[in-house]
Amino acid sequence: MYINGDRLWESLMEMARIGATPAGGVCRLALSEEDRKARDLFRRWCEEAGCTVRVDPAGNMFARRPGQREDLAPVAVGSHLDSQPTGGRFDGASGVLAGLEIVRTLNDSGIETSRPVEVINWTNEEGARFGPVMQGSGAFTGVIPLEEARATCDEDGRSFGEALDAIGYAGDAPLAEGHPLHTMLETHIEQGPLLERNGLQAGIVTSGQGIVGYLVDIKGEEGHAGTTPMDQRRDALVAAAEIITAIHALGHEFGPSARLTVGRMSMAPGSPNTIPGRTRFTVDMRDPDSARLDTLDDRLAGLVAEVGRNHGVETRLERRSRTEPVRFDADVTEIMRRQAEAAGIGHMDLISGAGHDACHLAAIAPTGLLFVPCREGISHNEAESAKPGDLAAGCEVLYRTVLERTGSDA
Amino acid sequence: MYINGDRLWESLMEMARIGATPAGGVCRLALSEEDRKARDLFRRWCEEAGCTVRVDPAGNMFARRPGQREDLAPVAVGSHLDSQPTGGRFDGASGVLAGLEIVRTLNDSGIETSRPVEVINWTNEEGARFGPVMQGSGAFTGVIPLEEARATCDEDGRSFGEALDAIGYAGDAPLAEGHPLHTMLETHIEQGPLLERNGLQAGIVTSGQGIVGYLVDIKGEEGHAGTTPMDQRRDALVAAAEIITAIHALGHEFGPSARLTVGRMSMAPGSPNTIPGRTRFTVDMRDPDSARLDTLDDRLAGLVAEVGRNHGVETRLERRSRTEPVRFDADVTEIMRRQAEAAGIGHMDLISGAGHDACHLAAIAPTGLLFVPCREGISHNEAESAKPGDLAAGCEVLYRTVLERTGSDA
Repeated sequence: MYINGDRLWESLMEMARIGATPAGGVCRLALSEEDRKARDLFRRWCEEAGCTVRVDPAGNMFARRPGQREDLAPVAVGSHLDSQPTGGRFDGASGVLAGLEIVRTLNDSGIETSRPVEVINWTNEEGARFGPVMQGSGAFTGVIPLEEARATCDEDGRSFGEALDAIGYAGDAPLAEGHPLHTMLETHIEQGPLLERNGLQAGIVTSGQGIVGYLVDIKGEEGHAGTTPMDQRRDALVAAAEIITAIHALGHEFGPSARLTVGRMSMAPGSPNTIPGRTRFTVDMRDPDSARLDTLDDRLAGLVAEVGRNHGVETRLERRSRTEPVRFDADVTEIMRRQAEAAGIGHMDLISGAGHDACHLAAIAPTGLLFVPCREGISHNEAESAKPGDLAAGCEVLYRTVLERTGSDA
Repeated sequence: MYINGDRLWESLMEMARIGATPAGGVCRLALSEEDRKARDLFRRWCEEAGCTVRVDPAGNMFARRPGQREDLAPVAVGSHLDSQPTGGRFDGASGVLAGLEIVRTLNDSGIETSRPVEVINWTNEEGARFGPVMQGSGAFTGVIPLEEARATCDEDGRSFGEALDAIGYAGDAPLAEGHPLHTMLETHIEQGPLLERNGLQAGIVTSGQGIVGYLVDIKGEEGHAGTTPMDQRRDALVAAAEIITAIHALGHEFGPSARLTVGRMSMAPGSPNTIPGRTRFTVDMRDPDSARLDTLDDRLAGLVAEVGRNHGVETRLERRSRTEPVRFDADVTEIMRRQAEAAGIGHMDLISGAGHDACHLAAIAPTGLLFVPCREGISHNEAESAKPGDLAAGCEVLYRTVLERTGSDA
């Protein structure tokens, strides 16, 4: 193994002291004082490793290790340093510091890469203080207009722009148009259980799921639980229950890639001896394939209407949002797979169910995303945990991939 | 037809002015000032009809028309004058005033019955201000100890006893032990749709359903909607949905007598992209047969456990209450059926899904309960409505039944 797993772990633990919570997690909300301290530490470490740090107007930080050919676009490695309010030590930070470890290893080995290498800290990936999620990478790639990002406010009415200016991280480095990336690489904890359950260290992410969000509204008829015969009811909860059961079955039918979830539900009037007249619930539908999402969309509409007819209730299915699936670059993905193999690191292909900065970057550059296991898949939680050896293995795969993409030999 | 339907209707409409609401209903909460006014009016009408009015310590009113044989127990007809907060004009009052109309008709016809006839107004049938429901008849029959009834408080902390004393309706007439009834008759609006849908005027109630109340608690595991595969979920809402669907199917399987309802449900954490970790819901299970309730109880426990096993969630089924079924007196029921036939009034046998004062009385005296149609089965609602002709038909059947049970000829 080329990279230094102990050094990576020590840096992670030092970073985790910034915003550390008593329960062992971190609270480093985007553009907070803790975020500033984390950025300052990251900048210092990068400069100590010989990098030049630039900041763009969205606060994204780019630490550049020069290449032999400064006219060529860099190979970038990055993630985010901000966290959830009761977040873990690894979500985001492990990806940024993996990039730093790669630079440090290149230095230790005296390797001059053909292309430059950049380590990136994307602003506000979590969306916990300002919305939406992945705001910095969204602004960089142009999905979110910069002025729109700067105008978003936190719950105290403070804007992203004001907060960014206040911590001194609004820079003038160009956004993506003036800052082409040859390759974008990100490593992140899986936030799911598959690697751990399969006893593997590296998840080669082939795609990111498209997400469609719905609201279902059912209107039946209230009635007396004792006097209304079963066959004369228009029970909005029973109709909802059948739909939820069918949605779950649909998820299985379209498995293993599809994920269908009813996460929020309300009902009325909520009296034990009154037949429910109204239910409302959300549907979160994910699949990495756009055409399959279309099919699922049709199936969902069909089953909601059918259950409605069978129960004599009015149903309304409202599509609230749709985010298209992301396909990560086949070449980069294949390199990661091959390098994991070469390093003797157990790996499997995975689909990302959550959004990551790499999902935005995939639209503008060949991009690879690599997952490492986290304990029981727990994340967005102070109990989030990952093993030093797994983080090192993920970093190793990325290091080897950087070498191959920059045109260098280990 | 012997009874005077117009007079019955006029008395009902006059009574409905007490506590009348703008939307056409009534608000006559038990032991309120409106209840006092309704009681005063009822007392005056009864005294004008030659009755002697006695009141027991639970506030139940007994207006007695003497019989030839004052040593014999009376045939009683009654219901309640209190209402829901946004109640209708017929629920309860139509049964009390049918009793009054029977006395008036006996007077008009100059009939001397062998047994005395009593018209009863039971206190607090609705349970809307003080709990539980059917409190006055419960205290009379001894199911609810008198002191316990007097001690129950409304939301303002005022006790039943204080309120009863304040309106001057705590009397000293004996409770059931010292006040045997030969027969108890009640007529009430159906509060269900069957008579209207069958185009019939009289529902001969053969039994009152037993009711078992449950709380079901399901504990699954929260998880990310995007990263947790379908086959590795422990979704508390999906498990609840399957149970609710199965409960509804069980109701159909044990139909037409059984009624199974999930009326209240809550879930957590309630985030659109988080798999639900917790659900809780009530089950209201009714059937007129005690053995069938036992079978349903077993089936419910079995299906809850089975769904729990299939989904890897913890389930807890807690039985909170059980009220045994009531069978109304076969002789009285047969007389009502025969008298409806003789009067040319279309009738059918029914099971009462709701509780009525007659259910308590059935334990201590031969009791009959007769339903009349109400529009669309709507009740506990200001929109509650019944037709004068249907109310008159029900009163007619009861009048004829009173004659037969008192030993008199029309």
